[in-house]
Amino acid sequence: MTTQQLLQQIHQKKSFLSVGLDVDLNKIPKHLLETEDPIFEFNKAILDATHDLAVACKPNIAFFEAYGLKGWQSLQKTIDYINENYPDIFTIADAKRGDIGNTSSMYAKAFFEDLNFDSITVAPYMGKDSVEPFLAFEDKHTIMLALTSNEGAFDFQTLKVDGKELYKHVIETSKTWKNAQNLMYVVGATKAEYFTEIRQIIPDSFLLVPGVGAQGGSLAEVCKYGMNDNVGLLINSSRNIIYASNGTDFAEKAREEALRMQQQMQQILLDR
Amino acid sequence: MTTQQLLQQIHQKKSFLSVGLDVDLNKIPKHLLETEDPIFEFNKAILDATHDLAVACKPNIAFFEAYGLKGWQSLQKTIDYINENYPDIFTIADAKRGDIGNTSSMYAKAFFEDLNFDSITVAPYMGKDSVEPFLAFEDKHTIMLALTSNEGAFDFQTLKVDGKELYKHVIETSKTWKNAQNLMYVVGATKAEYFTEIRQIIPDSFLLVPGVGAQGGSLAEVCKYGMNDNVGLLINSSRNIIYASNGTDFAEKAREEALRMQQQMQQILLDR
Repeated sequence: MTTQQLLQQIHQKKSFLSVGLDVDLNKIPKHLLETEDPIFEFNKAILDATHDLAVACKPNIAFFEAYGLKGWQSLQKTIDYINENYPDIFTIADAKRGDIGNTSSMYAKAFFEDLNFDSITVAPYMGKDSVEPFLAFEDKHTIMLALTSNEGAFDFQTLKVDGKELYKHVIETSKTWKNAQNLMYVVGATKAEYFTEIRQIIPDSFLLVPGVGAQGGSLAEVCKYGMNDNVGLLINSSRNIIYASNGTDFAEKAREEALRMQQQMQQILLDR
Repeated sequence: MTTQQLLQQIHQKKSFLSVGLDVDLNKIPKHLLETEDPIFEFNKAILDATHDLAVACKPNIAFFEAYGLKGWQSLQKTIDYINENYPDIFTIADAKRGDIGNTSSMYAKAFFEDLNFDSITVAPYMGKDSVEPFLAFEDKHTIMLALTSNEGAFDFQTLKVDGKELYKHVIETSKTWKNAQNLMYVVGATKAEYFTEIRQIIPDSFLLVPGVGAQGGSLAEVCKYGMNDNVGLLINSSRNIIYASNGTDFAEKAREEALRMQQQMQQILLDR
């Protein structure tokens, strides 16, 4: 999917919501555990219930790998289901990958070719040659960690290098990389005040924003400081949506929560 | 495997060699492509030919994920084969993972419980709560990126924070984390002169050293500056060993190359 197509979806659906699939067998409704592939059945129900309210879907790869071969099978079925039934959904492999060049190329092949995701999250610590293999794919997007939403973000990301935080160096340096136009960035919602300065460095880039909801970030604050002329935000919510209920009404309740967020987003888009 | 058991293996085999499994179907001998699981058959042959010369084995997870479900199956078979036949081998999942706490927990479960690896490589960018879930596992080891062997290492890892390189801050900070005794570090061989300063910060920790051979690092130099009283080094070689030949004699040639390295290591251990 091109950035232009993503933007069309945002305007059409009046939403910039991403639904995160962090599926833990201990948390999903008990009745699903009797099915052959509970993870896939859960994902399918969530997608069917929310696809018209969200523009993106973010399977969290760890939650599939934790179940080994069976988990990888559920991942394959989930992404195939999205690509076949909801091609309007921008898919994000939340994988946080990054390694030396020839190894990053293999990860890019895994997620962009084999699984056919539109995008993948990557970690910046190993620098340019660990990220460029992802950027090489046309019409695919590489979403690099900049400032994350967890407590540990303050361990290294905000250390000052020449008076400027490391995460700003990371963003600035990445702008010089080959095919940098394919870059988006992860910026956590728990630090809304940081968005102003980030927007000075990358006014046009899309930002994937986790941490609204379960992790405590405010949607209104993030939009106030982070939105650009082209919206430029994908707000992810995982647990608040997918675990809105753990009964047989889980999909219905997930839709209610997604709708609540979509309506807030619609209002924010109107008020701009 | 405990650190003590690893050390015993090093003294018994007079080797601190790790064999890296970066298996690319385009590079392995053609005759293997006719088998049902070429990646596993290749790994099995390499392991059978080198297990007595090496103390560790490092499957590179990207090279399995690139082949999707079939690749994950080959990974499962490879680690099971090692654990069943060569329990004296210290296994390293080269995965470079790292995410918010509940997600890192799932990666830890995937590699430590489901696949039963002894250790995993992780990335430090997301800080303490992204690494501690790995450290929580007893008798498992978390190998954190410090200074890597690629060109991109100089993009961020060597930026100076308060006059000191970022990678040193990463190492120092990590020493304060819970169960830090389960930490090892990745330090690239291409920068042997850096080992002296790193040893001042972590005199006792094991270092996993990629970059000897194909990437240009020197074994003698790394040992000169990086070895401690307990050896404290695992030197990884991937391509130089596994692709020593791409004919039907690939396992034999892999053994020759592993033997060449083991003999150099034996001499270094004698000369200490």
